Parts: sequence; structure tokens; C-alpha cells
Amino acid sequence: MSYDTTALKRQAAERAVEFVRSGMIVGLGHGSTAVWAVRKLAEALRAGRLENILGVPCSKEIEAEARSLSIPLTTLDDNPVVDLTIDGADEVAPNLDVIKGGGGALLREKIVAQASRREIIVVDETKLSRALGTLFAVPVEAVAFGLATHVRYLESLGAQVTVRHTGSGEPFRSNQGNAILDCAFGPIADPIGLAAAIKRHAGIVEHGLFLGLASDVIVAGPGGIRHLSREGNHA
Amino acid sequence: MSYDTTALKRQAAERAVEFVRSGMIVGLGHGSTAVWAVRKLAEALRAGRLENILGVPCSKEIEAEARSLSIPLTTLDDNPVVDLTIDGADEVAPNLDVIKGGGGALLREKIVAQASRREIIVVDETKLSRALGTLFAVPVEAVAFGLATHVRYLESLGAQVTVRHTGSGEPFRSNQGNAILDCAFGPIADPIGLAAAIKRHAGIVEHGLFLGLASDVIVAGPGGIRHLSREGNHA
Repeated sequence: MSYDTTALKRQAAERAVEFVRSGMIVGLGHGSTAVWAVRKLAEALRAGRLENILGVPCSKEIEAEARSLSIPLTTLDDNPVVDLTIDGADEVAPNLDVIKGGGGALLREKIVAQASRREIIVVDETKLSRALGTLFAVPVEAVAFGLATHVRYLESLGAQVTVRHTGSGEPFRSNQGNAILDCAFGPIADPIGLAAAIKRHAGIVEHGLFLGLASDVIVAGPGGIRHLSREGNHA
Repeated sequence: MSYDTTALKRQAAERAVEFVRSGMIVGLGHGSTAVWAVRKLAEALRAGRLENILGVPCSKEIEAEARSLSIPLTTLDDNPVVDLTIDGADEVAPNLDVIKGGGGALLREKIVAQASRREIIVVDETKLSRALGTLFAVPVEAVAFGLATHVRYLESLGAQVTVRHTGSGEPFRSNQGNAILDCAFGPIADPIGLAAAIKRHAGIVEHGLFLGLASDVIVAGPGGIRHLSREGNHA
């Protein structure tokens, strides 16, 4: 399978932008896929194919990117309902539940997803799996205070826990100043039950299991672009 | 009922310190009651009645108080199991479930309570009620990002929501930099169900319903000090 993943993800992200209509509040995800979408959105605005768009950025990084491209921005405080969000994911299950958070922005991504009428996830087909947890660890955002107790708790749920660090060896901190714990569970039989158990512990702020939030998944593969939706697949 | 609440709370806090034994890891709560307990603990250490105590402070404020009194401190990272914690509360139900968070430190207080073998709550008897929510709003710690959506969600659960501000009119921020939403529910029929519903929403970090966490409650009233415990009441 030697094909150009970058080009395919870019193509898929651009396909997602086709669902944006003038006048929409648009959630801008975090990560490389979202960057492609933001660039395409800016291009459509410049060309006049779209107008009156307001973006809600899911991270400080995508906010900076959007500002540099002159995309008008707003906040959930001013616009608590988002029409459509385009974001990436780390793993996608057949029912469109996903794992997100490899980029460290899962909390804001989830707050925006939760406020969105439509959440479009863009991935390349290597991210598809039969059960969440097969390909990717579940990132968990936890407060730094009492971190050892949060790690212990997650281990008691069956996770192999790694405290995320930056490339230079510092403890990674989210936009909120929290730690990220990458929790390898292996294939997860009951994501809903696991999600509830993870959140039960004080000190855990949020986790990367996005259940029932994605309405559409755009999948890029060597055979082309596929569109999966909760209502059925659109080839 | 004109009696001296301050003197009674102090007496009750000092009674709680009698449960501390040499060699214990002791959680130090937040607020006026905890300050009395910390002072009594320092006195016992100075007098040699207790030794080898390590304190785990629940807030930056109580940490400063403990340091000023030369109480040796540790963290949950070094000592993830706390032997005994002494803390205050805003409302106490007959089954010893409590509401906490009036002081704005509910997240750290809950992380420490959750790590404690024994959680001793000290209150004056005006805090006792038949059902949580009767006397006090439930404080909810929420991330500032998307705050309007968190308020909306809590309102959908039936709360009248007030965003907490400081005395000088600034938005209040917890030790973690989050907002506090005071949620007036009135008497809560199903605290466990409500707690789970509150935590379901991304962006809500923690809430002030402490369910099943308190092992003992020391109650100060004009008639004296009462000791309630999960195993039964000790007059």
C-alpha cells in the first residue's frame, strides 16, 4: 500500500468543506486534516463561493492558522450552536464512534463536537477498525494535581497508561494546562460503559472516546474518497 | 439560636484532629474549618503529641497556612493513599452525602477525599438537611472554553445557574483556572443520577456532590459536638 496519505487526506478534507454553506457557524478542528480544511475554507471565502462564515476554533493552534488566513472567528459564548464541524480522528469504528486526542486538543474538540449539529470526521482508511482501542490508545485529559492517583485509577480499569511528554521531554500540557494520559486498553468491548467509568473519577477532565458525536466520516483510500454517515453509506 | 458558630466550628474541627495518629498522611481541607484543624494539628506536632505527620493540602491557600505553621507536606504523587482527611462542607444529608465547593476548591478536595481511607467532615448543625440541594447550590467546576454551552446544559438538567464572581466582580477562577457555576436545583431526589448526568457533558470538570465519600461527620451545635459515622452515630 504505497500511496500518498497526505494527498489523500487533503483531498478528503477538501471534500468535507463542500458541505459548508454560506452563513454557517463552522467548527475548526485541530491537527493536520483540519489545517487542510481551513485552507480550503479560506480559499472559498476569498473566491466568493462562500460568505458570512464564522469559525469556532478547537485549539489555539488552529485559531492562529485561521487568523492568518483571515477567516472570521467567533466563540461558543457568542454562538453556542455550531452548524458543522470538520475534524480529524485517530480511529473510527463501524458505527462511527471514534477515538480522538492524538493531537492533545480532545477537550475543546469534544466541547465543539457536542455543540455541533453535524460533525464531519476526516481520516485516511488506515484509521478504520472493527473495535475502538485496536489501533490507538485512548487519550485522557487529567488535572496534574494528584496525577499518580488518576494513573492508578485508569490502570484499575485495565489500561496500560503512558504520561504524554513533548518531543523535548517535558510533560505535555493541554490548552487548559492539564496532563494527557495515553491509555492502551486493546479492543474495547463496551465503549459506553468504559467512558462512564473513566469519567467517574475526580481529576479526569475528559477522554478521547467520542461516542455518538460523529454524523459523517469522510475516508480517503487508494480507491478514492468514501462518505460514511449515520444514515447509511454514500459512495 | 444565638450561639457562637465560630467557636463551635473550631471545637468540632479540634475534635476531628483527635482522630489523627502519628505516622499518618493527613489530607488538609480548604476553608475556615480546615484552618482550625491545621492549627490544632500544628499545635499537637509542636507539643510532641503527634509526630511523623505528612499533610496533603487541598488548595494553595491551605498549603500556605500549613507551611507557615511548619507542618511537613507531601503530594498525592509521592503518597497516593491518604489515611485521614479533615474538611468542611456546605450541606450534609442524613446518609452523610455532602455538598462542597462553596470555597471554590471542590476539585482538589474531591481528589483528596477520593484518595482517603477516612474522610471526616466538620460542620455546624445549620448545614444538616433532609435532602441535598435544599440549603445550598451545587458548585460545578467547568472549563472557561465554551462556558455558555455548559451553562445551557446545566439549565437543561433543571438548575438555576449563576456564574461565580469574586468580590471585586471578576469571574472567579479555581486553582486550575476553571470557572465555578453555582447550580441551584432545590432538593435533589436522585443525587447519584444527577451526578452522573452532570459529568456526562464535556467541559464540566467536576461537581460538588460528594456521594459516598464522607466516612464521618462532626457536627457542632448549641447542644455540643455530635459524631455521625457511616457505621452509626457516636454521641
